[in-house]
Amino acid sequence: MNDFVFCSPTRFVFGRGVTDAVGAEVAALGLGNVLLVYGQGSVERLGTLDRVRASLTAAGVSFVEAGGVRPNPEVCWVRDAIELAREQKVDGLLAVGGGSTIDAAKAVAFGVPYDGDVWDFFAKGVPIERALPVTTVLTIPAAGSEGSGSCVISCDAESRKLGVSGDVFRPRLSILDPELTFTLPPYQTAAGITDMIAHVCERYFSGVGPVPVTDNIAAGIIRALMEAAPRVLADPKDYDARATVMWGGTLAHNDLAGCGRSLSPVVRAGGWESHALEHELSAHHVEITHGAGLAVVLPAWMRHVWKADPARFLLFARDVFGIEPAMEEEPEEEAIADAVTAAIDELQAFFQSMGMPATLGDFDLGEADIDVLLGTLRQNKGERFGAFMPLTMEDARAIYLSAL
Amino acid sequence: MNDFVFCSPTRFVFGRGVTDAVGAEVAALGLGNVLLVYGQGSVERLGTLDRVRASLTAAGVSFVEAGGVRPNPEVCWVRDAIELAREQKVDGLLAVGGGSTIDAAKAVAFGVPYDGDVWDFFAKGVPIERALPVTTVLTIPAAGSEGSGSCVISCDAESRKLGVSGDVFRPRLSILDPELTFTLPPYQTAAGITDMIAHVCERYFSGVGPVPVTDNIAAGIIRALMEAAPRVLADPKDYDARATVMWGGTLAHNDLAGCGRSLSPVVRAGGWESHALEHELSAHHVEITHGAGLAVVLPAWMRHVWKADPARFLLFARDVFGIEPAMEEEPEEEAIADAVTAAIDELQAFFQSMGMPATLGDFDLGEADIDVLLGTLRQNKGERFGAFMPLTMEDARAIYLSAL
Repeated sequence: MNDFVFCSPTRFVFGRGVTDAVGAEVAALGLGNVLLVYGQGSVERLGTLDRVRASLTAAGVSFVEAGGVRPNPEVCWVRDAIELAREQKVDGLLAVGGGSTIDAAKAVAFGVPYDGDVWDFFAKGVPIERALPVTTVLTIPAAGSEGSGSCVISCDAESRKLGVSGDVFRPRLSILDPELTFTLPPYQTAAGITDMIAHVCERYFSGVGPVPVTDNIAAGIIRALMEAAPRVLADPKDYDARATVMWGGTLAHNDLAGCGRSLSPVVRAGGWESHALEHELSAHHVEITHGAGLAVVLPAWMRHVWKADPARFLLFARDVFGIEPAMEEEPEEEAIADAVTAAIDELQAFFQSMGMPATLGDFDLGEADIDVLLGTLRQNKGERFGAFMPLTMEDARAIYLSAL
Repeated sequence: MNDFVFCSPTRFVFGRGVTDAVGAEVAALGLGNVLLVYGQGSVERLGTLDRVRASLTAAGVSFVEAGGVRPNPEVCWVRDAIELAREQKVDGLLAVGGGSTIDAAKAVAFGVPYDGDVWDFFAKGVPIERALPVTTVLTIPAAGSEGSGSCVISCDAESRKLGVSGDVFRPRLSILDPELTFTLPPYQTAAGITDMIAHVCERYFSGVGPVPVTDNIAAGIIRALMEAAPRVLADPKDYDARATVMWGGTLAHNDLAGCGRSLSPVVRAGGWESHALEHELSAHHVEITHGAGLAVVLPAWMRHVWKADPARFLLFARDVFGIEPAMEEEPEEEAIADAVTAAIDELQAFFQSMGMPATLGDFDLGEADIDVLLGTLRQNKGERFGAFMPLTMEDARAIYLSAL
């Protein structure tokens, strides 16, 4: 087990109707005037925002609204919201939405106390030392931003989508009300579950040997998500299945599933290869949902790299899918390859069973698009990146090609 | 999944040599003068305390020492330490030791800002609203106090051992250095692992139906602990096995393994039946190590209650021991009973394999001692207690008798 620091200080308030407790919970943190951040319509249309406004008002918490956050939030929106937050002297953020909304709120939270331009944190690696307190009401389980120290922002002018990490902007409070997710469309639900599983996998395949407590937790989260997925797609109002997806998504990304799996205690576990490969897809093609991109890229990445550490993939095959190599029936090397391939096949089949795409062709991408992806990938990640097996640009090209 | 609030804000700094970082970590919390709480000798003898003193001094943190905490810490010690903490105007606590030492520090932490007698919190149920920040250097993994909102204190004058719960006194920082546990004797190591498994079981058998994410995490923690136990007993300096035990013990009791399994979001998951039955043992017989008492009481309790929810025990049998009922070979009722009994047998055999006792006779207790245990059990828990299957005093008698 490698050394680690784990601090997930978020207060998670989970259950039926807890949305109406947000005002009291925000007030209990000592916040009196928050920037209410939200997206492009559904939270207003479904009445969630009105419940939040009423709860804040009842608790005596003032708020200023900053709506219109788009999927893959853009830095220009963040800059405007920072100005507004400063003018209105807010003392905290309340994001009502999914990962994009929460990430936008986080960027505002650390942008407000910073003298320079907020994009510096992403493009120049300026360390993030201070942030206003962030609170959330989660409506789309997927990105895990409600419990994570991660934040991803796009810059259209540069065609880049970049992430930062830090404990200082982890949410102080997250309201997790599974009933808010009853209305999520199947595609978004499926993409969310795919994203969660990818978050666990990035940490699981981190280039570090077995860490039994963490590995068992990781496999257990994935199994629970896979079991809940067909139930939630069959009956979008299955409370227990929705609750499993919501809580599973939070634990998939609050770093619990990475404890002891980091190469250094001050960085997150994993090389995030699949995320890096996917980010290029949704940076260049904003219509591609992040989770859908991962459903294509994650299995393709696995097939390309598993031989770098077959034992790790065998553990995954056994603990997630109950697949063990048929050592007595086949030569060892074949048995291992068959078991690993069977597990990756099952994972990909699971994604497809939820309606996720299997190839880049499903996004109407062809060989000609790959050079564009590689161009910005190189810019963002350099000539080699990753932790499980460092990937060159030729590896990346091979993975994209194999996913066509 | 039942509603819950989960907030485990502790900063866990885990790894080789992190003991020497305690001063810098305590200073980073803004503490400048701490009460240094420790036990009865081993941390001094092994040099741990000198490392902590040097680290605090190097970081410019002053400290006042309060040593001599005994196993099953006594309220008189706590009262004296509260006086000292007030006189010396400390701004936080640093416990160096195991659960007893940390619990003693917690009691001081919430005793200092309270006007009345600290025993009021335990005996009268006075709500705990404020506490000085608690930090720890863990040397004995077992009680999970380094990450929990639990605190158990004994009062010799009343022959009582009582616990309180609350988020306000959860440690702000815990230094987890597995190398400090290399010198732990086998019996203490085994008793610690037993205690951890009991912490998970109390939440697992909480009278609430399946909660897949939490149930998988719970079973995964138990499996990891059971796999590490023989390795750590065979080689006390097996770092990875010691690390698994240390981190497993923390997660066994920081409430992660109870999320969604509470009958109410404001109370901890589980009825803590085994702990209640065991607390009477160690309250009356201070030579009984808590974990050793649990090794006797937990299986006896399981055998008495499993029929109240066989499905729950079948899940446990499958996910912890890989035991499934032989439905095709036996009548259903028999198959279930056999599978559940086999799982409980395996759990008890595992405890015995670590050198833990199997009967009350191993503590030289006989039938005549049981009335004394029942007397204070009734005083502490009333005529009925528990969540999985409410236990009457007759149930408790039957469980104790069956454990003879």
